[in-house]
Amino acid sequence: MEHTPGPTTSASADAVLPDAVVDLLGVLAYGELTAFIRMAVDCDLAPTLALKSSMGRLATVDFEHYGQLVDHMRERGIDPEAAMAPFVAPIASYHERTRPRGWLEGLVKAYVGEGIAKDFYREMSALVDEQTRTVMHRALEDGGHSDFVVEIVRDTIRTDRTAAGRLALWGRRLLGEALSQAQAVAVERDAMSALLVGGGVDLGEVGRMFTRLTDNHQRRMARMGLEA
Amino acid sequence: MEHTPGPTTSASADAVLPDAVVDLLGVLAYGELTAFIRMAVDCDLAPTLALKSSMGRLATVDFEHYGQLVDHMRERGIDPEAAMAPFVAPIASYHERTRPRGWLEGLVKAYVGEGIAKDFYREMSALVDEQTRTVMHRALEDGGHSDFVVEIVRDTIRTDRTAAGRLALWGRRLLGEALSQAQAVAVERDAMSALLVGGGVDLGEVGRMFTRLTDNHQRRMARMGLEA
Repeated sequence: MEHTPGPTTSASADAVLPDAVVDLLGVLAYGELTAFIRMAVDCDLAPTLALKSSMGRLATVDFEHYGQLVDHMRERGIDPEAAMAPFVAPIASYHERTRPRGWLEGLVKAYVGEGIAKDFYREMSALVDEQTRTVMHRALEDGGHSDFVVEIVRDTIRTDRTAAGRLALWGRRLLGEALSQAQAVAVERDAMSALLVGGGVDLGEVGRMFTRLTDNHQRRMARMGLEA
Repeated sequence: MEHTPGPTTSASADAVLPDAVVDLLGVLAYGELTAFIRMAVDCDLAPTLALKSSMGRLATVDFEHYGQLVDHMRERGIDPEAAMAPFVAPIASYHERTRPRGWLEGLVKAYVGEGIAKDFYREMSALVDEQTRTVMHRALEDGGHSDFVVEIVRDTIRTDRTAAGRLALWGRRLLGEALSQAQAVAVERDAMSALLVGGGVDLGEVGRMFTRLTDNHQRRMARMGLEA
């Protein structure tokens, strides 16, 4: 793959997309596909039919987003499989290292892990052409389908302080693994790092971005009643 | 749950649904939810991203059907969870006894197992009120999303005769397990058996129904190039 990073916000719809944008669409699409599978698998852990449904709904929303991203890539002349391929290993590694031990961990992962990833993609979407940004933003909407998680976790920890401590640790682990995978991807994919720098983002701004990601993470944990 | 079986084809939209129809909607809905989860899990086994997508699409179609059935039950004043509850154990048992050992078995199961189940529900839909029948038929459509299975299996067995033999046995096993679970359900649920008999279906007709199920199964196997 050739590397043609550079300013991208002025790209027209017909323009060949820079590699960084291809990377971004590829990693986002594969992330959605994998999240779909992992959440569907975690449906099995749900203790009630209503919760299986809620988790299933969350999973299928990610699959719809995956489909939209694949369609967008095809329209723009990008081979979706080639775009996703470099991210199969790092995303598998993230999920391997954060395999939930039980329903509650799966639930918190669906809320917190997805939250961090989506914040990151939202930050990156500021650096791409408008059409891609629109597609990315649509793929990052969850339509409030993850709100049920907050309520369940709050209810659980009200009566189970051990769970509260365990889930707080789990949330920290998820943040760490997500950030370290993001960093591994950035190091590996020159184009993606170049998007940040080429997009006029200085290192101070990158630092501030990570601060924002962490702040949002803490807000999500607080919403569930968990220490970050 | 009280048992009020009887002729159902004349039921108006506002009428209380007979238990047998509640059972039928419950088992179909839970079957779709479980098929969604199992197929999503089997996405993990798919050797390429394109196949993960195709299997994922098949899974989400089942989840959509599940949602439609749940909506229909709520509209008709049926508690979906109560309606599904009696079928959790038999459906879990079917999937437990037919856990695919590898991608190809998962693929054949998605085509053959779903095919048998859907044929059965289509037969049963002849005995219910029109509104329920419409909802059931919509839930039984797969929009051709399972067609990719036929092509892959045909391609595989062209070069791998061991796979052909193994998958032929697997198909027979799926048929046996599906029919024996259907029978277990029918014996357990008086209302469901009563629907057949109360709907004016004599035992000879039940026998012919099973013959039709088996014939359709053989046609599906033949389409994949497998001996039934």
